[in-house]
Amino acid sequence: MTTSERGPRERMVFSAAQLIRRDGVTATGLREVVSDAEAPRGSLQHYFPGGKEQLVNEAVEWAGRYAADRIARFLSTMSRPTPGKLFAAMVRQWTDEFKATGDLKGCPVAAATVDCADTVESTRAASAAAFACWRRPIARELTAMGVPPRKADALATLMISSLEGAILMSRAEQNVRPLTTVARELAPYLDSCATQEA
Amino acid sequence: MTTSERGPRERMVFSAAQLIRRDGVTATGLREVVSDAEAPRGSLQHYFPGGKEQLVNEAVEWAGRYAADRIARFLSTMSRPTPGKLFAAMVRQWTDEFKATGDLKGCPVAAATVDCADTVESTRAASAAAFACWRRPIARELTAMGVPPRKADALATLMISSLEGAILMSRAEQNVRPLTTVARELAPYLDSCATQEA
Repeated sequence: MTTSERGPRERMVFSAAQLIRRDGVTATGLREVVSDAEAPRGSLQHYFPGGKEQLVNEAVEWAGRYAADRIARFLSTMSRPTPGKLFAAMVRQWTDEFKATGDLKGCPVAAATVDCADTVESTRAASAAAFACWRRPIARELTAMGVPPRKADALATLMISSLEGAILMSRAEQNVRPLTTVARELAPYLDSCATQEA
Repeated sequence: MTTSERGPRERMVFSAAQLIRRDGVTATGLREVVSDAEAPRGSLQHYFPGGKEQLVNEAVEWAGRYAADRIARFLSTMSRPTPGKLFAAMVRQWTDEFKATGDLKGCPVAAATVDCADTVESTRAASAAAFACWRRPIARELTAMGVPPRKADALATLMISSLEGAILMSRAEQNVRPLTTVARELAPYLDSCATQEA
């Protein structure tokens, strides 16, 4: 779906997520979101009566669903998926974006956590839900690859943690080195956990 | 050194780091820093002629040095250090704080990256320098434990990435589960890299 095919509500959620990726939650202004989304004036109040808090929370939810949906798409391109290959694909999405744009934006869920975890309870909860929404399909796919269920959930947490931290380090360095490093370092260990490989 | 033994300059840098940990950079106000540091009015302008940008950058540098200094202290408590034990100690600092305070503040370097990487070049550079400052003593200690130097630098990046991401997830969940999970999952792999253990 291209930008123009989305309705103003969807465009505002998407724009909020993108601006939060770049500037964090606190610095993202509502007027900027409306402008970036090319949404009619007054539509913000109409669609988001809960104001910025509601819009931010929906952007965080959107990001969690987006990340979760990507997992199945990554798997669909692999003839013989392994945990290490899945993690490499998750990382590659970020290194590809850096190569395409020359700039690495952050993760909106990370930004919401940094800026709001202590001050906006509903946003903290939305961030926790987004991480969980992302973790579930990863753990499910790892289980399908032969990782025992409990171990799969722990590995999914390790994969998301390593990726999130590497995004931070890569943004600071403006270099994909930390991202490619964690993908390379973790792959053998992740693969060794899929003992019942088909 | 207790708070009262530090001069106003040091207290303001420390307060800035603590407030950034809680609220992010954008939401941290200069007046709040001066008040939290119990610093005389006008001292901000005196010590930080570069304003908020200078203060934030010094807080980020302080955090990098603090994290780096902790590595030697962790090692000094271990009779037979291993990479996995060092990582467990790095994680434990965060789980201990959560248990002591009932609340998990974030990492100021992560917050500076999220809020400023795209907009304040000097702060992005300070974040990159802080991550590098932290990585160096980790890599050095890993090498002393028998990890080959190049591998040691890669593992140090993996350890910092996993810890930073787990801090984000734990803050969102308000639960140490992600932190304890990454410590438990990574330890065997990290230890397996120290093939020339003494």
